[in-house]
Amino acid sequence: MSTEILDKLRTAMTVENLDSIVIMSPENVTWSSGVMIPSQKIVRHRHAIVLVPRQEEPEMIVVDIEEELVRKDSSINKITSYNEFTQTPVLVLAECLTERNLDKSRIGLETGYLNHQDYQQFSANLPQIKVKPIDKLLTTLRMTKTQNEIEHLTWAGRLAEQVAYEALQNWWPSMTEADLGRVITDKFSAKGGDKLTMLSVTAGERTPMLNGGPTQREISRGEVVRIDVIGTVNNYCCDVARTAVVGEPTKELQDIWQKLVDCRDLALDHTRAGVSSHNLFQEYIQKMDNWNLPTLNFLGHGLGLTLHEEPYLNRYSDCTLEAGMVLAIEPLVCFPELGMQLEEAVVITESGCELITNQFDIRQLWQMQEKS
Amino acid sequence: MSTEILDKLRTAMTVENLDSIVIMSPENVTWSSGVMIPSQKIVRHRHAIVLVPRQEEPEMIVVDIEEELVRKDSSINKITSYNEFTQTPVLVLAECLTERNLDKSRIGLETGYLNHQDYQQFSANLPQIKVKPIDKLLTTLRMTKTQNEIEHLTWAGRLAEQVAYEALQNWWPSMTEADLGRVITDKFSAKGGDKLTMLSVTAGERTPMLNGGPTQREISRGEVVRIDVIGTVNNYCCDVARTAVVGEPTKELQDIWQKLVDCRDLALDHTRAGVSSHNLFQEYIQKMDNWNLPTLNFLGHGLGLTLHEEPYLNRYSDCTLEAGMVLAIEPLVCFPELGMQLEEAVVITESGCELITNQFDIRQLWQMQEKS
Repeated sequence: MSTEILDKLRTAMTVENLDSIVIMSPENVTWSSGVMIPSQKIVRHRHAIVLVPRQEEPEMIVVDIEEELVRKDSSINKITSYNEFTQTPVLVLAECLTERNLDKSRIGLETGYLNHQDYQQFSANLPQIKVKPIDKLLTTLRMTKTQNEIEHLTWAGRLAEQVAYEALQNWWPSMTEADLGRVITDKFSAKGGDKLTMLSVTAGERTPMLNGGPTQREISRGEVVRIDVIGTVNNYCCDVARTAVVGEPTKELQDIWQKLVDCRDLALDHTRAGVSSHNLFQEYIQKMDNWNLPTLNFLGHGLGLTLHEEPYLNRYSDCTLEAGMVLAIEPLVCFPELGMQLEEAVVITESGCELITNQFDIRQLWQMQEKS
Repeated sequence: MSTEILDKLRTAMTVENLDSIVIMSPENVTWSSGVMIPSQKIVRHRHAIVLVPRQEEPEMIVVDIEEELVRKDSSINKITSYNEFTQTPVLVLAECLTERNLDKSRIGLETGYLNHQDYQQFSANLPQIKVKPIDKLLTTLRMTKTQNEIEHLTWAGRLAEQVAYEALQNWWPSMTEADLGRVITDKFSAKGGDKLTMLSVTAGERTPMLNGGPTQREISRGEVVRIDVIGTVNNYCCDVARTAVVGEPTKELQDIWQKLVDCRDLALDHTRAGVSSHNLFQEYIQKMDNWNLPTLNFLGHGLGLTLHEEPYLNRYSDCTLEAGMVLAIEPLVCFPELGMQLEEAVVITESGCELITNQFDIRQLWQMQEKS
């Protein structure tokens, strides 16, 4: 485990009066161990667990068939494995805690992740253990990124930006959303992306459909196309949205796009350490309200090992922004038949913020050109 | 909701003496509603819920920003939506149950899916409700597929088989596992696959690493390459593994491959309605033991909306196979420095089984040819 993350966890244990922290969610397992366990998200009963005692060395519990892979890549040396058919991962955890004389101790557990059935089995086996939920604690610890994480997120954001830019260059008659989706997928893969976890491609009247995947709908000349390149690169999330038009935009479309760019610029001007995330959202929503443009109660979100994480920039939340946070900022308009979206990634510094997705000039609404 | 699935659920409610069934896991939500909600797996707190009362019409609870998409595609007409920042999905569920006078009733709930925190909130709000876990019940109901599901799984399996076949045609000097991974991803996408959820590509000494993703390792002439095309097509899983060699195989490699094909044929001969899944595994393991070939305690698994589901063909489980089950059958050898795997999809019929992945002759170990 990296010293930086181990220090964060040990400090938290002191503050929270915990004897150990038990990590189970895929994002926090990857964050603390440096390894993404391929089947953890896919085969639900295959729990991967990181046990971090306050005093002793951390330990990892993984399914036996992925032990070799974990031993190779994990930053945690002590690995215990289980057979998924003859053993119950949470009971293996209970044994590990007992062996370390932690069976009557205070442990922090992600009770917002662990399912109720497993929780019951675990606590029935360790009736004297005191469990404290730590979901919010871990969320907070992961909110400001390490230098290594910022590098990963920068790489991921720029890769997605390039993919979006290249994919929106060409259009051909009878091109469908699915065709465009394939172009994006091919480019994403060729540049080294892991996978597109939720690629959104919508055209025409489908553009307001958030998270809408590509369909066989044809994209016609003059229509608006909205893409949201959501995926992972070296396990870190990218989330870059762009809107384009096939051919020449109308003045109205260019005008709306310009307003989204203005909102992006407003966010870049105001985003810095010490600022209230809620105030940032308020600045945005006032601008949109003044223009009478329909939008969501949402300007953006933290980005990291998960797609949507703290801090949120929205109507309902507030937190003080800090250097090291990485945000997706996504002004959008959402008419019943027209959605336009611009989504960027930024990293917050002491004095302001840096745009990660800064490789192309986006002031003009992108025009897809007919492929010759 | 399809009549076939609604009937299955209502019969189960009668047998289990339940007043309603509440479905929350992504696979069971998709199974019962016909719609895959894009962000459900990605943003954990965004629960999607299907409520199926024994008497009344089913209802679906989804996050507001995906309501439109769900309304368009779901086979359930009554949709309730929530704001993810101001409302708690399980409390919206509690309200729906109360409105239907089901707040003191017996409900079936996926307690092996729902996290402990949400479970506590839910039951604190409905202190008189009687909760019965239904994870196993739903697993059992999904074990035999509807005709529509069999068609989806057939399409998905054949698509993956074609991708594997085409991807393993060509090799070039300095080709890496990542290059091969890109070829697979491009082809999968071009043929209409949704996404590769856990693509495995390993070469040489990495071939025994199960679920190992593609790396920058170069693939040399004469080396063995193992791929496992795991993904979804129209939400249904494909899981097709093939092994190849770059150039001419040694007699030893061809010999091992032939044994895997023999095991596949053995499984095809024995798989039919009424057979014990454990006996099938025993036939397999005896063959492997006689040959002194190292393998896993595992011959296969059910395939559907999730990758690994009941029934399992392994050392530890037993169930009676039924017509309509779809299985992945995967004989493999696992030496410390060499893994070879053959994975097929089959559908069980009354009189036997049908090989889904039947488009190419696999009796010879595949040879990757240098691209001219």
